[in-house]
Amino acid sequence: MTKFWSELTTQLQPYEAGEQPQDQQYLKLNTNENPHPPSQKVLSRITECASDVLRLYPDPEANNLKNAISTLYSIETNKIFVGNGSDEVLAFSFMAFFKQHKPITFPDISYSFYPVYCKLFEIEYNCFELNTNFEIDINDIPKDNGGIIFPNPNAPTSLYLDITTIETLLNNNKESVVIVDEAYIDFGGQSCITLVDKYPNLLVIQTLSKSRSLAGLRVGFAVGNSELIEGLERVKNSFNSFPLDLLAIEGGVAAIDDTAYFARCRDDIINTREWFTSELTKLSFTVLPSKTNFVFVKHKTQSANELYLQLKQHGILVRYFNKPKINEYLRITIGLRQDMVKFLETLQLLLDK
Amino acid sequence: MTKFWSELTTQLQPYEAGEQPQDQQYLKLNTNENPHPPSQKVLSRITECASDVLRLYPDPEANNLKNAISTLYSIETNKIFVGNGSDEVLAFSFMAFFKQHKPITFPDISYSFYPVYCKLFEIEYNCFELNTNFEIDINDIPKDNGGIIFPNPNAPTSLYLDITTIETLLNNNKESVVIVDEAYIDFGGQSCITLVDKYPNLLVIQTLSKSRSLAGLRVGFAVGNSELIEGLERVKNSFNSFPLDLLAIEGGVAAIDDTAYFARCRDDIINTREWFTSELTKLSFTVLPSKTNFVFVKHKTQSANELYLQLKQHGILVRYFNKPKINEYLRITIGLRQDMVKFLETLQLLLDK
Repeated sequence: MTKFWSELTTQLQPYEAGEQPQDQQYLKLNTNENPHPPSQKVLSRITECASDVLRLYPDPEANNLKNAISTLYSIETNKIFVGNGSDEVLAFSFMAFFKQHKPITFPDISYSFYPVYCKLFEIEYNCFELNTNFEIDINDIPKDNGGIIFPNPNAPTSLYLDITTIETLLNNNKESVVIVDEAYIDFGGQSCITLVDKYPNLLVIQTLSKSRSLAGLRVGFAVGNSELIEGLERVKNSFNSFPLDLLAIEGGVAAIDDTAYFARCRDDIINTREWFTSELTKLSFTVLPSKTNFVFVKHKTQSANELYLQLKQHGILVRYFNKPKINEYLRITIGLRQDMVKFLETLQLLLDK
Repeated sequence: MTKFWSELTTQLQPYEAGEQPQDQQYLKLNTNENPHPPSQKVLSRITECASDVLRLYPDPEANNLKNAISTLYSIETNKIFVGNGSDEVLAFSFMAFFKQHKPITFPDISYSFYPVYCKLFEIEYNCFELNTNFEIDINDIPKDNGGIIFPNPNAPTSLYLDITTIETLLNNNKESVVIVDEAYIDFGGQSCITLVDKYPNLLVIQTLSKSRSLAGLRVGFAVGNSELIEGLERVKNSFNSFPLDLLAIEGGVAAIDDTAYFARCRDDIINTREWFTSELTKLSFTVLPSKTNFVFVKHKTQSANELYLQLKQHGILVRYFNKPKINEYLRITIGLRQDMVKFLETLQLLLDK
């Protein structure tokens, strides 16, 4: 630290993303990337846009992308906001809706970027506890709050909260904004986007990083009442007019339009997950019932940290969180079938030792 | 507005970027884009990267890009920060260094995003006035400040402040951070990056949007003492781990590496500017001595607003600012020689009416 840092900067506790080794020599099952390549239509569109047009600023409204999302979800474009990955969309949302006088709330075990945003934007928060099965019980959510946010399915637990329960929550909580962070919704859950017209305080956030194989392109979006979207636009236009470059906008459009490829990759991941879950169960793992592209698992006897380290030595990266309540669990991304076969072979070796 | 907006959001006055018509039927001389296409090496590199690798998160540190900038300016990578356009780098800088107890300061005529950041991050500011020639007089900068920022060359005036004078300012102002916003430095000025090792409170910000023809790719960077850079990294990693997508990182590297093409485009723009300036002078315009890729001009008799509107009717966009002190001026981007010929022909028609 230095005397030139703002007091705020001194107090920050930045988010630590999962390891992103640049040599690519690992089997990466640690950051929930999609094992399938992006749609060929995405790659073609990017190649087409690698042209003179890059000398010009992109459309600050990214209307092509909003139109694609509008068609996908049959929702008006003024109910759609787009940003540089769902992380940026989350950051803008915290500024736009959560910088309130009352503390906001989110699960104690959840996306660890939420408390980081709170520090950055000087927002108070109170966590509510997941129940003993790691589930969100909506009765545990503080009634008097400045806002509610949770991932659905939750991360790193992989557990899904059904939409009927979320609607009950929305009926009980009409005075503050409720953000449902649906980064993993495409792997078996039902999106709350259908509830947006009914609940003016609901904001749903999604990303193209996971189910559309585009972590490298940085595209996220939010769907909500037009007044919530206008709030996000105000914050974004006070921060950066053009957070999405032309290639991200156009590549994003192509990814959303290729619904057949999307469905094929998603189905493959779901099938692999179900098979992999049963294999892990045979090896004395408890596997939480996942609706995501990862599983959250605990071995009957082996230390999670030890397994993480040994897998890494054998060229396989998974995610280990050294945090209370979950430090006996590993989060394992679902790759291709062959990736998971390799994982299981390596795991078998380690367990046999 | 709605009851769900934070108080902050209600008070924002978002920045308005220059018109960015999506039909591209205008001769665009309004947002200081480069008339030359990006380097062919940039386009090739983007095409190469339109591949399976996009399914993975990009390098959160963007080390390839930092290495390229490091080579260009012979400066260590720990003195370099990269972001999503210089606008995002500026936003992070305001949070990291300017959220102080004392008001920051910048010229009354300058980049109009500065007061927008101040609103967003709740930073107080006092503007200092440019002198009657629209120049920055460093004696007019408040001594007791929470930070200083100015573009060099300044926008929209196009006027350059020589590096010796900036060094005098740095010697007189050692207690707060001084940010020199060098978006246009490549068109004839001398960068302050050479002063970074001597002044630990100096931060220099540049962009690839203008001189490297990459407004569509969103790449900006800052150079400063490693402790300032660490402050920026802390803020960035509390906001968005990956603001630069893979294509922006790799395209940016190729743009910086192609120094020969860069120099050729820059020289062409400077030559066109000098010729265009003399032509405008013949048509009774006052043209401020520009070191940028635009000129700031005032006609002896014609209203600037009227000229702006008539040019737009004739398919030419320039920038008009309806603001005190500069509402008799137009800002005109330097395009290709043929663009400026067309501009002059149209202008002649309008003046002859």
